[in-house]
Parts: sequence; structure tokens; C-alpha cells
Amino acid sequence: MDLYTYYRSTSSYRVRIALALKGLEVRHVPVNLIRDGGEHHQPAYRAINPQGRVPALRTDSGEVLIQSPAIIEYLEETHPQPPLLPGDALQRARQRQVAALIGCDIHPLHNVAVLNRLRKMGTDEDGVNAWIGHWISEGLAAVEALIGDDGFCFGAQPGLADVYLLPQLYAARRFAVDLASYPRILRVERLALEHPAFRTAHPDAQADKPA
Amino acid sequence: MDLYTYYRSTSSYRVRIALALKGLEVRHVPVNLIRDGGEHHQPAYRAINPQGRVPALRTDSGEVLIQSPAIIEYLEETHPQPPLLPGDALQRARQRQVAALIGCDIHPLHNVAVLNRLRKMGTDEDGVNAWIGHWISEGLAAVEALIGDDGFCFGAQPGLADVYLLPQLYAARRFAVDLASYPRILRVERLALEHPAFRTAHPDAQADKPA
Repeated sequence: MDLYTYYRSTSSYRVRIALALKGLEVRHVPVNLIRDGGEHHQPAYRAINPQGRVPALRTDSGEVLIQSPAIIEYLEETHPQPPLLPGDALQRARQRQVAALIGCDIHPLHNVAVLNRLRKMGTDEDGVNAWIGHWISEGLAAVEALIGDDGFCFGAQPGLADVYLLPQLYAARRFAVDLASYPRILRVERLALEHPAFRTAHPDAQADKPA
Repeated sequence: MDLYTYYRSTSSYRVRIALALKGLEVRHVPVNLIRDGGEHHQPAYRAINPQGRVPALRTDSGEVLIQSPAIIEYLEETHPQPPLLPGDALQRARQRQVAALIGCDIHPLHNVAVLNRLRKMGTDEDGVNAWIGHWISEGLAAVEALIGDDGFCFGAQPGLADVYLLPQLYAARRFAVDLASYPRILRVERLALEHPAFRTAHPDAQADKPA
């Protein structure tokens, strides 16, 4: 499989964690979102993903999948062990509701396209940072109320909620959002940053990270 | 089961379609997002959903689930017939990538909280409308490239992609976005608006719609 990825893209980082947790090795094809106005906007990449965003996954049979939630559910179905969604339907829903909260109500509001749109509308950098901080803080407060009291988000093994949470925390720290009010979230972060799969997937460990 | 719903909430509408397609009857508990500054912000509703958003689903065993993507996957697992995600892992991924594109990259950018935030930052109504139109148009152009040439998004029966698409089109029309460039999407809309489940779930058919 080939993963079209950018080192600090939140949704690319999610897919890298899912792949690493399942022990799947894929070829990384870097797509630089900055260089030359963004390689994701260029015809060569649009031919792969008509939406022009990363990540995209090319399967061994040559099919291209886009959208990290769809890619991760596909990986879960085709490589069920270890499960990212263990347990019964309710336990699986608990993982998915945290993933959806982050994937729908936090991350989309601070992706690079949205921030550039705000700038184009005349929002200055203080305004952009206030916007980012507002959505991340409000969203993480809800996540804090939904996750468990020990281990990863839901127990001793990492699951789908953790796959979404760690990239969101990386973005929060990059944008200097104060995380002190979220002790459960900080516990999960400490645990995950020591875990080999999360380390392998981390932006700092990517070959396409600028020197 | 109880569904906490608001008639014109995009994500409530999604869950109503999924329930109707599966022939599941649930009690509707209306949550008025406008009255008294929004019932979803009040302590009574926050006790049900700490995130303070609709929809929420209370299962027959009393568990509350939030986030429409998680609720719909839960319904698919607990009531698999008729399937919203038929076929093999790849076909399921094709449905989910359209759902994720709408659920992550279109709808979150025009929900009421985001539009109010833009107004608070000084954006006038023309600016708000341009913002909405930009994200819906860009997202639907990508959806148009991903769906099939006849029937619903992917074949003769409605699936997860259609569950997400119809509420998004309702919002697009409400915000007067031009849809003429999306013939496949318009075909799906025509078909779905004749389908009994989509009719039952439509905002105009809800008891909490103001007279």
C-alpha cells in the first residue's frame, strides 16, 4: 500500500498511527502542502485525489481511498487485529463518538484551508489564533468528559479515540493551546507518547519533515 | 429509543434518515436550538450531552450516544438490515468517504456555532453567506466526482453516502447555494425525495417544525 502523507497533517498522522498499531508497513509518498503553493493543489495529485487533500491510501490492488475516517475503518475491516474498535457495539460507539467529535467538530475548523480563508477575509493572526484556540478548547473539554479515568481513552490498549486524540494534541501544542484543564487527556498523551506505534507515526519521525 | 433532535439540524436529519431506512421507530425529544438562546446550551440538556449539541440517542438500555457518525455506525451494527454499508470493505469505504467528506469538510464549517462565531468576529451577513457557499460548493464538487452514474450515490439502494448527502443538500438550498454544476448529486436528490424513508425524515415532516 502507498500512503500519500504530509508530516504534520493531522489526518495523515491519524492514518499513520492506525497503520503502526496494526503493524502494517506502507510506502510513504510525501505531498508537501507548503512548497510551490501546495503540491496537493497540483494536477498530478488531483488525479489521485479529486478533493486535493491528504491523506490518500492506494491499496495493493490499486484502489485509491481518501478521507481518514473511511481509510481507518477500511484498515480495521481488512486487518482486524489488533482491533481499534474492540468490544460490543456500545463500546465501539464510545470510541467512535470521540473520534467523530475530534474529526468533525475540532480539526476541520483549523485545517490550513480554513485558516487561509479567514486570512483572506481580513482576519489578522491574533484573530486566527483566537479562532483556533476557541474550537480546540471547547472540543477538548467535551472529549475530557467522554473518556475514561485510566489508561488510554478507553482502557489498557489504544483504540480509535486515541488514534484521533494524539494528532489533535500535536496540533493544540503547535498552536500553543493551554491543555492544563484536561488531566485525563494529558494522561492519555503521556502514555501514547511512550508507545512505539505512536512514536513511529509522530510528525518528528517522518522522512518528509524539513531539517 | 429516544432521539434528541431539531427539525432542521443537518446531523439530526442524518440520524432520522438512518432510522427510517432501517424501519426503526423512536420517540423524538425536540431540542430547540433557537428558543431562549438555545435549549442545547441549558443544564438539562448538557446533563444528557456534555457537548451540548444535537442529535443524541438514548438506547433502550438507557445509554446516551452522541455524534451522528457514531450513532449511525451503532445503528448499522445493532440493526444490520437493510444495510447502509453493503458489499465488501472497499464498497463500504466508498460510502464512508463521501459521508466523511460531508461530515468533516462541509457541514462543520456552516453549523450554527461556527456562523455565530464569524458574526462575533465582525463578519457581515454577505461575508457569512460567501463563507457558507464556498465550503458547500467546494465540497459538493468533490462529492460529484466520487459518486456513481445512476441510482443513489452507489447503486439502486440508498446507503450511508445518501444519508449524509440529502441533509447537506437541504442546507445548501436553505443557504441558496447554486447546485446546477452537480448533475449526479441532483439525480440522487430527486430519487431520495421520492423515497418514503427520506420523506419521513425530512425537516418539513417534523413535529417540532414551527408552523
